[in-house]
Amino acid sequence: MAVLPPDLDQATFARVLDEFRGAVGADWVWSSDEDLGPYRDSFSPVWNTDEERRASAAVAPADVGQVQAIVRIAARYKVPLYPISTGKNFGYGGPSPNVTGSVVLDLKRLNRILEVDDKRNFALVEPGVSYFDLYRYIQERGLKVMIDCPDPGWGSPIGNSLERGVGYTMPFFRDHYGASCGVEVVLPNGELMRTGMGALPGAKTWQEYRYGFGPDPAGLFAQGNFGVVTKMGFRLMPLPKHYRTGLITVPKRRDLVRLVEHVNFLSDSSMCGEPVYGSPLQALLGNPDFYALATKPGGPSDAEMDAAASAAGLPSWQVELQFYGSEETTKANWELAKELILSDIPGAQAFDGEHFPLPATEEQLDNTGQPYRTAIKRRAALGVPSLGMWRIVRDDGHVGFFPVIPRSGEAVFEAQRVLGDALREFPFRSYFNATTAPLNWHPFTFQMVFAPSVKKNDPAHNETVNRAMRKIVAVAAEHGWGDYRAAPIYQDDVAATYSFNNHALRRFLEQLKDAIDPDGIIAPGRGGIWPKRFRK
Amino acid sequence: MAVLPPDLDQATFARVLDEFRGAVGADWVWSSDEDLGPYRDSFSPVWNTDEERRASAAVAPADVGQVQAIVRIAARYKVPLYPISTGKNFGYGGPSPNVTGSVVLDLKRLNRILEVDDKRNFALVEPGVSYFDLYRYIQERGLKVMIDCPDPGWGSPIGNSLERGVGYTMPFFRDHYGASCGVEVVLPNGELMRTGMGALPGAKTWQEYRYGFGPDPAGLFAQGNFGVVTKMGFRLMPLPKHYRTGLITVPKRRDLVRLVEHVNFLSDSSMCGEPVYGSPLQALLGNPDFYALATKPGGPSDAEMDAAASAAGLPSWQVELQFYGSEETTKANWELAKELILSDIPGAQAFDGEHFPLPATEEQLDNTGQPYRTAIKRRAALGVPSLGMWRIVRDDGHVGFFPVIPRSGEAVFEAQRVLGDALREFPFRSYFNATTAPLNWHPFTFQMVFAPSVKKNDPAHNETVNRAMRKIVAVAAEHGWGDYRAAPIYQDDVAATYSFNNHALRRFLEQLKDAIDPDGIIAPGRGGIWPKRFRK
Repeated sequence: MAVLPPDLDQATFARVLDEFRGAVGADWVWSSDEDLGPYRDSFSPVWNTDEERRASAAVAPADVGQVQAIVRIAARYKVPLYPISTGKNFGYGGPSPNVTGSVVLDLKRLNRILEVDDKRNFALVEPGVSYFDLYRYIQERGLKVMIDCPDPGWGSPIGNSLERGVGYTMPFFRDHYGASCGVEVVLPNGELMRTGMGALPGAKTWQEYRYGFGPDPAGLFAQGNFGVVTKMGFRLMPLPKHYRTGLITVPKRRDLVRLVEHVNFLSDSSMCGEPVYGSPLQALLGNPDFYALATKPGGPSDAEMDAAASAAGLPSWQVELQFYGSEETTKANWELAKELILSDIPGAQAFDGEHFPLPATEEQLDNTGQPYRTAIKRRAALGVPSLGMWRIVRDDGHVGFFPVIPRSGEAVFEAQRVLGDALREFPFRSYFNATTAPLNWHPFTFQMVFAPSVKKNDPAHNETVNRAMRKIVAVAAEHGWGDYRAAPIYQDDVAATYSFNNHALRRFLEQLKDAIDPDGIIAPGRGGIWPKRFRK
Repeated sequence: MAVLPPDLDQATFARVLDEFRGAVGADWVWSSDEDLGPYRDSFSPVWNTDEERRASAAVAPADVGQVQAIVRIAARYKVPLYPISTGKNFGYGGPSPNVTGSVVLDLKRLNRILEVDDKRNFALVEPGVSYFDLYRYIQERGLKVMIDCPDPGWGSPIGNSLERGVGYTMPFFRDHYGASCGVEVVLPNGELMRTGMGALPGAKTWQEYRYGFGPDPAGLFAQGNFGVVTKMGFRLMPLPKHYRTGLITVPKRRDLVRLVEHVNFLSDSSMCGEPVYGSPLQALLGNPDFYALATKPGGPSDAEMDAAASAAGLPSWQVELQFYGSEETTKANWELAKELILSDIPGAQAFDGEHFPLPATEEQLDNTGQPYRTAIKRRAALGVPSLGMWRIVRDDGHVGFFPVIPRSGEAVFEAQRVLGDALREFPFRSYFNATTAPLNWHPFTFQMVFAPSVKKNDPAHNETVNRAMRKIVAVAAEHGWGDYRAAPIYQDDVAATYSFNNHALRRFLEQLKDAIDPDGIIAPGRGGIWPKRFRK
């Protein structure tokens, strides 16, 4: 089945592939159906349909020079390239491009860790480096820095950061794009550019001061298509002396409001890592009566929920807190958390978790010991990559919608109700009900999660998923909540919700895109930004 | 003396001014020499010469709609606008434009504080709001947040952030651009655009999640000329419970190396605010023998400096540390600092400073009590704007060069020597000698300071300053150190040092600028970025 780049005939495409082989070697260009299997999105909800976005070929350069060569060949023939780094990108389109027929530019061979400094606390890496690679490098050298990794840890710090991925440690570091510090990119014309201090030849502070001088275009390369990032710097957290956890529960539904305010205080004061919210009442969802209550149209009343919690002898909410510092610092911060919350919320209870010096032992990395189900990803919280989350995959994968909502209890209640009602027509077990807790991944905001599974051989199911995804994106937007990341097949839908002043942002970005890459050599459509050639 | 916009005759300019008056009212358009006095750079080293950059007029719109009207009129007549916010911008060109004849777009009347939230910890302001305004607003309402302000505090949070200004509290917050969260801009065609979540109509998290969806162009508006920023969000630190200071001294010159490493650890662990470095040996510079030693060509030896320190009974270096948190947290972090440093550096000494609950009393805001001269700006360190720094102005003002150098003791020694040698030919008292301490304003890097005074009526002196500025920019760049901010008359010199791959960054930015603003309506030349019309 021949997938060709847009506007290209078979013979010309064959010539392009020959030129690619000339640039990187015949072993590193793939175009057979079989070889391209790994470049399909194995979580695709449109698997094997016309809507599936498929690559025409994949090419894996070995270094920056070869990336430049590939981009220049692609530019000559107007072949769209779709750069990927390493890892899986499951739930967000995998390695599949926005435009069928694009050539995947697989950067896995650019896998050099160029520098890790544990005095000035940074790393400089290439896109093919994984979190596992970076972790191992640091361990082997006994460097006193900790990475902040997502879970699973097979991803690329560069790819994850560019997709605005998040981790699990202290606020500044778990915003992976926020903790980046300067990029090197190959532009659509094949030229090499560095941002921040990297633009100064022989710069000594490329990974220490991100802005350089003058306007900083680095943000255009995140979720974008203005160039191929080939190096990126990251700020690293020094390895803390000590780690500590504690759990706080509050009895009533509305107690979430004050609980969140206190945790916001701790978090924004740099006194704790990722707060992990949960509701012990989730344990009751197996009970049909409780399920009916928690998913009641328009939402249950506070009194109804409090009565159910009371009857079950369960608190309404919990938050797990994590502290990094010296033993005494972590103790002081946890004591403050208890003092603030227990003195303010009647019936709140605090449970000391574990605490131990770092680095942790293997045993300590196994997360146990909280009175209620713990959701802390202990390895990730300690900067140790793992494959833990991988176990949550159901059916043949999933797609994801993670709307950003305000960091308040009230916003959680509203999102539970609005998003729950929006999905009522669909045959999913409830994602949004009166026990749904927010995520506090991004440091200053909450998110909710809709991640329905897909089934490769059940197009009707997948079509339902698709309809639900499109509906929930739209309903969330009506309430001022937007998605932060999406698979290519949903990127236009999500981008369409960022429509202030007749899509002024998208029009501005497309004007820039046209100036830099009118033919769409780099990832046309990524992030909802289409160059002139492909714009409808 | 008629200053006209580029390529415009007197009659057409009069029509432009009439149209401006129609848009904002006659009281808010100024074009007489007298009225334009305040729009000249009173610190200019080229005062009253042909090189001075002077405005042809100034216009002060009252709201966003009027900003759009002014931009549209300017676009029609191709009149460059130079947007300023409020405050003085002393040492960086004041309100004076890059291009003589530009019309200053004075945003001082856009002075609304639109929102301050002390549960989710953010502010949304307009450009004419000053740090004083924001502080007062918070105090009057008893809100539990602390601002991070520069010193003096008359500046604008938006203007300061866009110039990549810094403050004095915790690392995340004192990078003012880094702590911003979403902007609203009027584009060169007069259209209104919002970035981040603000692009979603009715967004609920504009000040909580800065990236939104897709590529983020916000960085183009800092030190740039892609639009006029009319609103900006900022993350705010919750008002801490307690504040504490401590001072550590180390005896020998090379002890700075390990001292910096320990302080980097504390700072990057979010355990302290701005570290304030100094050398007690500065007190000896009045002694001609010591001055000769400290400024010795090629730098003195460690042994020579240690002997001088020892003879004077003074430590070679000191660092003042500041802690925010609960009383116990600040104590634990200070104890850790002492433990790490005193156990590692022989002869290091620690001195407890003050500590007190916040908000501070007026008496506590007066900074005293350290055994050596303290450099902590206590009010600024506690988010209280003041005019403290204003007192440092000498002669008729100064210009500034603040090269970014690595955050290490070795880099400090090298910069002392290289920059000291570079300035040897000039008749200034030494800025760079063996006692020069680094600034740690930007959270992850050091800076050095060259800020020679200017004298309005002494062109020969100013010409010397000019030559010294241009030489030191070039010498620093040869060593991989770049400036982070400059006055218009030096911006092209500084931008020229960011020349990686034949000025790839500048060429990329100018390609974008041409796409958005080819006629240079918004601040042509700012940040070294020139649109086609003005490019040489």
